[in-house]
Amino acid sequence: MNYIDVRSDTVTEPTKAMRDAMYIAKVGDDVYEDDPSVKELELLAATITGKEAALFVPSGTFGNQLALFTHCKRGSEVILSDSSHIVVHEVGAASVIAGVQLRTIDSIDGIISPADVLKRIRKGNDIHFPETSLICMENAHSNGRVIPLSNMSEIYSIAKEYNLPVHLDGARLFNASTYLNKDPKEITKYCDSVMFCLSKGLCAPVGSILAGDKDFIRKARKNRKLMGGGLRQSGFLAAAGIVALNDMVQNLKYDHENAKLLAQELSKIPQIKINLKDVHINMVFFEIDLDDNKSEEIVGFFYENGIKINPPEDGEMRFVTNYWVDKNDIEKIVSTLKSFINRHR
Amino acid sequence: MNYIDVRSDTVTEPTKAMRDAMYIAKVGDDVYEDDPSVKELELLAATITGKEAALFVPSGTFGNQLALFTHCKRGSEVILSDSSHIVVHEVGAASVIAGVQLRTIDSIDGIISPADVLKRIRKGNDIHFPETSLICMENAHSNGRVIPLSNMSEIYSIAKEYNLPVHLDGARLFNASTYLNKDPKEITKYCDSVMFCLSKGLCAPVGSILAGDKDFIRKARKNRKLMGGGLRQSGFLAAAGIVALNDMVQNLKYDHENAKLLAQELSKIPQIKINLKDVHINMVFFEIDLDDNKSEEIVGFFYENGIKINPPEDGEMRFVTNYWVDKNDIEKIVSTLKSFINRHR
Amino acid sequence: MNYIDVRSDTVTEPTKAMRDAMYIAKVGDDVYEDDPSVKELELLAATITGKEAALFVPSGTFGNQLALFTHCKRGSEVILSDSSHIVVHEVGAASVIAGVQLRTIDSIDGIISPADVLKRIRKGNDIHFPETSLICMENAHSNGRVIPLSNMSEIYSIAKEYNLPVHLDGARLFNASTYLNKDPKEITKYCDSVMFCLSKGLCAPVGSILAGDKDFIRKARKNRKLMGGGLRQSGFLAAAGIVALNDMVQNLKYDHENAKLLAQELSKIPQIKINLKDVHINMVFFEIDLDDNKSEEIVGFFYENGIKINPPEDGEMRFVTNYWVDKNDIEKIVSTLKSFINRHR
Amino acid sequence: MNYIDVRSDTVTEPTKAMRDAMYIAKVGDDVYEDDPSVKELELLAATITGKEAALFVPSGTFGNQLALFTHCKRGSEVILSDSSHIVVHEVGAASVIAGVQLRTIDSIDGIISPADVLKRIRKGNDIHFPETSLICMENAHSNGRVIPLSNMSEIYSIAKEYNLPVHLDGARLFNASTYLNKDPKEITKYCDSVMFCLSKGLCAPVGSILAGDKDFIRKARKNRKLMGGGLRQSGFLAAAGIVALNDMVQNLKYDHENAKLLAQELSKIPQIKINLKDVHINMVFFEIDLDDNKSEEIVGFFYENGIKINPPEDGEMRFVTNYWVDKNDIEKIVSTLKSFINRHR
Repeated sequence: MNYIDVRSDTVTEPTKAMRDAMYIAKVGDDVYEDDPSVKELELLAATITGKEAALFVPSGTFGNQLALFTHCKRGSEVILSDSSHIVVHEVGAASVIAGVQLRTIDSIDGIISPADVLKRIRKGNDIHFPETSLICMENAHSNGRVIPLSNMSEIYSIAKEYNLPVHLDGARLFNASTYLNKDPKEITKYCDSVMFCLSKGLCAPVGSILAGDKDFIRKARKNRKLMGGGLRQSGFLAAAGIVALNDMVQNLKYDHENAKLLAQELSKIPQIKINLKDVHINMVFFEIDLDDNKSEEIVGFFYENGIKINPPEDGEMRFVTNYWVDKNDIEKIVSTLKSFINRHR
Repeated sequence: MNYIDVRSDTVTEPTKAMRDAMYIAKVGDDVYEDDPSVKELELLAATITGKEAALFVPSGTFGNQLALFTHCKRGSEVILSDSSHIVVHEVGAASVIAGVQLRTIDSIDGIISPADVLKRIRKGNDIHFPETSLICMENAHSNGRVIPLSNMSEIYSIAKEYNLPVHLDGARLFNASTYLNKDPKEITKYCDSVMFCLSKGLCAPVGSILAGDKDFIRKARKNRKLMGGGLRQSGFLAAAGIVALNDMVQNLKYDHENAKLLAQELSKIPQIKINLKDVHINMVFFEIDLDDNKSEEIVGFFYENGIKINPPEDGEMRFVTNYWVDKNDIEKIVSTLKSFINRHR
Repeated sequence: MNYIDVRSDTVTEPTKAMRDAMYIAKVGDDVYEDDPSVKELELLAATITGKEAALFVPSGTFGNQLALFTHCKRGSEVILSDSSHIVVHEVGAASVIAGVQLRTIDSIDGIISPADVLKRIRKGNDIHFPETSLICMENAHSNGRVIPLSNMSEIYSIAKEYNLPVHLDGARLFNASTYLNKDPKEITKYCDSVMFCLSKGLCAPVGSILAGDKDFIRKARKNRKLMGGGLRQSGFLAAAGIVALNDMVQNLKYDHENAKLLAQELSKIPQIKINLKDVHINMVFFEIDLDDNKSEEIVGFFYENGIKINPPEDGEMRFVTNYWVDKNDIEKIVSTLKSFINRHR
Repeated sequence: MNYIDVRSDTVTEPTKAMRDAMYIAKVGDDVYEDDPSVKELELLAATITGKEAALFVPSGTFGNQLALFTHCKRGSEVILSDSSHIVVHEVGAASVIAGVQLRTIDSIDGIISPADVLKRIRKGNDIHFPETSLICMENAHSNGRVIPLSNMSEIYSIAKEYNLPVHLDGARLFNASTYLNKDPKEITKYCDSVMFCLSKGLCAPVGSILAGDKDFIRKARKNRKLMGGGLRQSGFLAAAGIVALNDMVQNLKYDHENAKLLAQELSKIPQIKINLKDVHINMVFFEIDLDDNKSEEIVGFFYENGIKINPPEDGEMRFVTNYWVDKNDIEKIVSTLKSFINRHR
């Protein structure tokens, strides 16, 4: 049986075109910088993000942590939103690998105010102060919202005033550019390094990109080896990644349309609380008025009906549309949810 | 010339009684646990805080960082106020020595809400989550305010519900107990470990105490050695510390009275913005309406008039009363400030 | 032009059978533990090594460092040969990720004496001592030699006497088992965890395995996520890995034969110094009597003749045979070397 | 009862002159760099070691680890003897605080050969290599032997050839200079930074010095704060330290004479194995032919006879002479040992 899977866009299987590309991929030992497919992907990624150079890495978490490790001296401070993926969903890696102190800004919606950033930058030579070494932003934010370019621009200006680098967690960079209807470079011009994922909405099986200037990427390449990310014939993964960048970005708008459709249908159900204006990309967050003990049942009920979902987290559910979910699937998801609610009230 | 020094209470020189106690102190090699004065101090400190055991450490920062290092597995998360000393004034040490991720709560006044703490505790076994390993409170807070016991009690209850230890940064524990007019144990009962300083308001020359249960202190003793805090004939410092605990705690109320007096006088000056109800202990924070370029001059002007002060930080000034500052000194401070303002408007 | 490549066995491209297996691989999101190919590979790897469980990791360095990170408390000590890959060729990662102290044993040939191991194990509760947390062995050693099972057995017994876990860096485990003509389990029974590579001599494009008991692998899975090694549809890589384990192990003996043949031919050249009895697996180390400035030229000369080699390191050259190098290639390598020597004397 | 204490020279209580100096010491807040006694001591220490600047630190371990932390980038490599104090007796701190990889050289007697050092220095840009960041020597070595200046000079030359800094663990620097009959600067000219102890043979109660060039000490001062070593009125300890440097160095020769006397007497006892030519400073190492279960008894037997000794470590005993042990005490120690042996054979 084929399940509809809206747990995440990370579950996306590669397309036929990707399998074909992998089958005939030219590969080599990338630790020796001999893999032509990896080189082609890195060049393409650098071009798309408007950076001097790019590096293939095994995952988004790997790319973000590699960026922290490469930008920051141990013991220095990184300013970022308390709700960012680096803080919440990367297993505390920043304190292990880079060894940095996260200086977080409390933010419900992922947008951090320039004033809050400014306040946290360490000024002067106070012997009690660590050095500020980096500011991180995340766009699209993992809560499904896209950060306005004006906000990015303001924070970037502050960073430059204090000679601080800016890293962008762009795991869903192309979802942001699709939502904003802008070239990705219009987003990445407000950062010095950017990580984006080839898996997730773009459907490549494995891998992400870290892009930045040449000197940064040269250091990151060595640090990638230290972190165990020096791969051999990774050109297979790169070949799929090239298809992802060339053919799949334009499909994201359909994921966004499906998410909006899903959100609208959900908003009609009385037991559901949803904020339609927060649905920017392919993620639909909502609350159902359910007894606690129902949260276990809902996953099973959907599964029996051919749909994979994640359990609610802190009372909130998240459905993520993706390339393998179409309009009919959306209808089925909505009707399954209605059945569940009817059965359980 | 003897200066009036209100830069901090860390500047306090020891009393004659302390010098006398140090002169005749019985000492031994404390790494061999042979120093009778250190043992006496540690026993006294454990009794005062109501803990099983205590350990002499070279400084407050040392004691806090030793607590983090001993409580927490590397890569785990510590929940605390964004304005706490551990976050702001310990040079990023938590990311170097303990190697933990600070999960801060944005708080203007140092009080963190139990709801915010609860929200940040990691629940379940999500593969993306680090483990929460500790909650830290600070009382008196380094912004001069005392945290209500009800707030400490609520946070402690939440911690116990999740089997989490609580560390108290009590650098100015006795200022808090003086303000609350409570036995220190009424405060330290809401924590599993506490650090307090013998220097600062209590006038001992060097050293702080870390107290907790026996197993914790046994581990901390070994970790103290790793951190370079295994001292030899530290009984000299302990001897002064014993005087501090026996004779000096009762003097803190005068520091608080002087701080209040100073605050009241300052509040009468039109160019000064001060919140009288925030003056809980020996610290007076206020803003003066001055041109930026005056902030350099004010330190020099006071110095010429026999008073040592710190420059304003982010527009805010802090005067700290202490054992060596009396009512006449307060008057002189106020009149000097008035002269400065008159000269500069 | 197709080059003969004897720089390393990491340069091996996958076989046609691997490309075919990857093309039709069933995949899923392995972070959700949904990838059937990864699961199949991990089960197969656990069976082959005689361990309860196994985990796919992106590289050999990743697997070794993950083992250190999972076995060892930070600040503890790991006993191992000074010439081991973890010490010499993993970019110092042990001090960054696991944060352990390497307690090395000076060893020319990779074999560490049980007496030296015993001497370095920390005994008693001395406050000056870190804890010993792990002993590491490496077989086949990266210097091309296979460690005798009697040596492994003795060290393993000592480890068990002191309740210490043993990790085996088995990057070339199957080369060792081939040389010893033993089942791999006869080697891995002297360790609690083992890392082996699917790339290298087995020709898979990317990836290694870490195997151990269930509890260890459960913890390693979470730590793998922290280190950025949680991959998505990694079943493609696993599919090639399954072919590697099923079809390629039996080919290693030909690599060894070719290495021996190469060594014998080289030993006939007067300007070459080689130790025939040290050629255990697919690696041939030797010295040529050349002027320093020739070391640059030799790489270029071979390249012009269609052969890729690495430059000498500390005067020593290493040729590595592999699946894509046959007997004719060996002849060509030898004759090219003779030409070079003739041209340069 | 007053015990003869030969467990270590760390047990030395301060002299009357030190207590007097502490009693009248001028002190201030050294975090504000306001303590005149600390400043005087640091200036004196810099002069004695021939370095630009010096810093007071709480202990020898603190000073060594601060040196590693300040010289070395995390993840880099430090080359040193396997028997050095930093490796054996500092609780693994180098992997926690500095986060460096120790690259040790196996050495029985603490002397490392220049050739071994040279071999371990990382050359070239190999992507597998960490960077070498420091070479450490130790003189006098904690095994009681003094390293010849010719050896130090050769290693220092190699270091400079590769632009590497050299740190000297000179915990017993003045014992070395006394043995060599050289000015301490003749030793410290072969290092870029040096740590020496004021406690130990010089009898100060607490503290050590880290000396080096101005820029190094400026960074070390900040790192000292991070490590919790920013003390307040530490001038008390500094006052004793000044006495130690001015008055106590010249007494070390008597400790050495007493050690030699003790060694000679011990060498006459048939059951004792001792190497007279290894007795360079105030430490006497020897083996007694005893049953294992006697090692517990010997400590108790000596204690009952008014002498404190440490239990044997790996079959070896160590007696350390110091300021509070005179010739009569030596006789008593020898006769007590004879009684013990007679009783137990």
